Amino acid sequence: MTDRNLSINRDRLLSRLQALGKIGALEGGGVCRLALSDEDKQGRDLVIGWMRELGLCVSIDRIGNVVGVRPGRETGPPVMTGSHIDTVRTGGLYDGSLGVLAGLEVIETLNEAEITTARPLAVAFFTNEEGARFAPDMMGSLVFQGGMSVEEALQTVGIDGSTVEENLNRIGYAGDAPCGSPAVHAYVELHIEQGPVLEEEGIVVGAVDGVQGISWTEVLIAGVSNHAGTTPMRLRHDAGYAAGAVIAFLRDLALRLGGNQVATVGSIEFKPNLVNVIPEHARFTVDLRNTDEALLKTAETELVGFLDKLGRSEGLKISRRSLARFEPVAFDTSMVARVERIAQELGHSVRRMPSGAGHDAQILAGVCPTSMIFVPSVGGISHNVTEFTSPEHIEAGANVLLRTLLELADAA
Amino acid sequence: MTDRNLSINRDRLLSRLQALGKIGALEGGGVCRLALSDEDKQGRDLVIGWMRELGLCVSIDRIGNVVGVRPGRETGPPVMTGSHIDTVRTGGLYDGSLGVLAGLEVIETLNEAEITTARPLAVAFFTNEEGARFAPDMMGSLVFQGGMSVEEALQTVGIDGSTVEENLNRIGYAGDAPCGSPAVHAYVELHIEQGPVLEEEGIVVGAVDGVQGISWTEVLIAGVSNHAGTTPMRLRHDAGYAAGAVIAFLRDLALRLGGNQVATVGSIEFKPNLVNVIPEHARFTVDLRNTDEALLKTAETELVGFLDKLGRSEGLKISRRSLARFEPVAFDTSMVARVERIAQELGHSVRRMPSGAGHDAQILAGVCPTSMIFVPSVGGISHNVTEFTSPEHIEAGANVLLRTLLELADAA
Repeated sequence: MTDRNLSINRDRLLSRLQALGKIGALEGGGVCRLALSDEDKQGRDLVIGWMRELGLCVSIDRIGNVVGVRPGRETGPPVMTGSHIDTVRTGGLYDGSLGVLAGLEVIETLNEAEITTARPLAVAFFTNEEGARFAPDMMGSLVFQGGMSVEEALQTVGIDGSTVEENLNRIGYAGDAPCGSPAVHAYVELHIEQGPVLEEEGIVVGAVDGVQGISWTEVLIAGVSNHAGTTPMRLRHDAGYAAGAVIAFLRDLALRLGGNQVATVGSIEFKPNLVNVIPEHARFTVDLRNTDEALLKTAETELVGFLDKLGRSEGLKISRRSLARFEPVAFDTSMVARVERIAQELGHSVRRMPSGAGHDAQILAGVCPTSMIFVPSVGGISHNVTEFTSPEHIEAGANVLLRTLLELADAA
Repeated sequence: MTDRNLSINRDRLLSRLQALGKIGALEGGGVCRLALSDEDKQGRDLVIGWMRELGLCVSIDRIGNVVGVRPGRETGPPVMTGSHIDTVRTGGLYDGSLGVLAGLEVIETLNEAEITTARPLAVAFFTNEEGARFAPDMMGSLVFQGGMSVEEALQTVGIDGSTVEENLNRIGYAGDAPCGSPAVHAYVELHIEQGPVLEEEGIVVGAVDGVQGISWTEVLIAGVSNHAGTTPMRLRHDAGYAAGAVIAFLRDLALRLGGNQVATVGSIEFKPNLVNVIPEHARFTVDLRNTDEALLKTAETELVGFLDKLGRSEGLKISRRSLARFEPVAFDTSMVARVERIAQELGHSVRRMPSGAGHDAQILAGVCPTSMIFVPSVGGISHNVTEFTSPEHIEAGANVLLRTLLELADAA
């Protein structure tokens, strides 16, 4: 077993986060490194440079996933950590990058301490986790895991009309490693929470026990456009009113189901969208999430029932279209327990919690035992230039990662 | 007194409506003649040509209002009818144009019958009633009535960045008549209902007893943008939810106040407007109308109370801005009774009713006894290319107009 006092170098990790954050930096703060953009290429070059300096053996697969392997005393599947370095259009310095650079920091800490683990260790970053330029998100890990063919992924057309393949070729990241290699013994990912729960409760570490299932629905309501002054309430077929009624219903639904059920209407559009015209059309999105598949289905069913009733009572034509549907993912219980115990051993407050956001880890969970380590996001804010996690919490999370990787790499 | 059997020529009136509707005609139906556009100029040229053919003495004032006067046996203020010929961007053939062209049809009917009235008659069309290009709506009649200075109106900048004055000069309709002349003895306007009430009740003529008061408010809600998956319901400050709650509240409010209270949220916008982000900002408009000023004030007060409570309970910053506020207008009771009686004498079903839309008549009511004659709108639809009123109803309304103008012009 390794030195119980071994710990990562916080300043070195922060300095790598700052250096990577300079690439694609936005005026006034934050960063834009859309997947497979010129900025993504510069970020990849920088991180791969560090990997090679640390002695990792770097391979790049056909979808551009990068894996750096540190040999162990044995051969065989490595224990892997990692995340992604692409960002949304107005992103922060921590989402994704923290997991990758904390992985490198663990490697450098082991190098300095001249520790060789039994199993190999690997640090990976996956292509296009954010989905901000190419859909779907988590594309690289999905191809790695086998959930999407590399051919389909390569042909994906982005928001600017060019394909994944064209951009991989352009930036020189169409690698030759087969997708899905190497096989992975276990995967653990450090990530900012991207939510307010840890900060709100004053807890330092989240032992992530799963990822919420996601149900995205687009609702289209067709009513009758009429004059807002001359049409009595009883003669209206108001698509805008119906949208408001659904929004109010969803709040009630989420509170009624309780637990970790959430419901959000984030996007809306009325037509013709004029102050004095009853909306003929309303379009809006519904985002439902729950860690419990049965409850998520209940929420979906109740929404459908409410829409049907509303359509009849208001004389509206209401249609729906699924935009995305992911079942909840439950992480390996012994992996979750290990993260929780290690955080406690290191003296940190810890709670088990689901992830409300999608992560590469949930995809990797399809091929190996997986868990995640969350650290607090100030104000719960992410996907935003003001995203911030304190140096103390970064250090705490990276030390939990260090210890977890060491245990997994040395366990029988 | 005139021949009781005198009546207008329906086909001639319909043929003028069709001819004017060809100017600015949209592919597939409907018309676009925005105020002071090239199409508006062509429409004005056509109507003024007809006025001159009918022997009217045409004057144009500084804001472009056009008045054609038919002399009476006496001099003095004419009995006036009219409306407007500008349209919204996707308008129909009847809104406004019917009132102007029915006025011309009355003149031609009197010319053919060689009837000279005691008082002069006048047919007017007012500039920019719709407000679709320049705010406020009813601008021409407002300047005519003295409620807005001509200087302020001329400097108004439209949606394309040019002023009313520039466009009046460009199309050659900056006249030299002083605004507000001639003085008017009485004003009566034929208009399509633009609402569904007459059709719904199977009634042919509306004797309009007033115009609803209008209260337009823009509501701005500032919350906190956060991840739709990672933010528990209890920690949200969701501007989009608040917008939905207000929409649902307004429906309840209108039904609770009853009578002719209406409430509409016609325009809405979320920011950032993404499926998986809790809206940070919501902006929407509230259109409240009632013929009773006290009830309209009650509706406004209840809305403010609801917004204040909602802001506190949800932790949101909610601000409001008045976009427009008109008190209800009550038309002259003897004028309304006259329209009602004449419709009955001509064998038409008739009901007194308020106008839910704004009209030049409500502005003219500030300077002379005024009323309006409504005829049914099929499906209650207007401001729409499918706007339609049947030939029978057009004929009925124009005959009520004929008789009303004759009585007013010959009454002591």
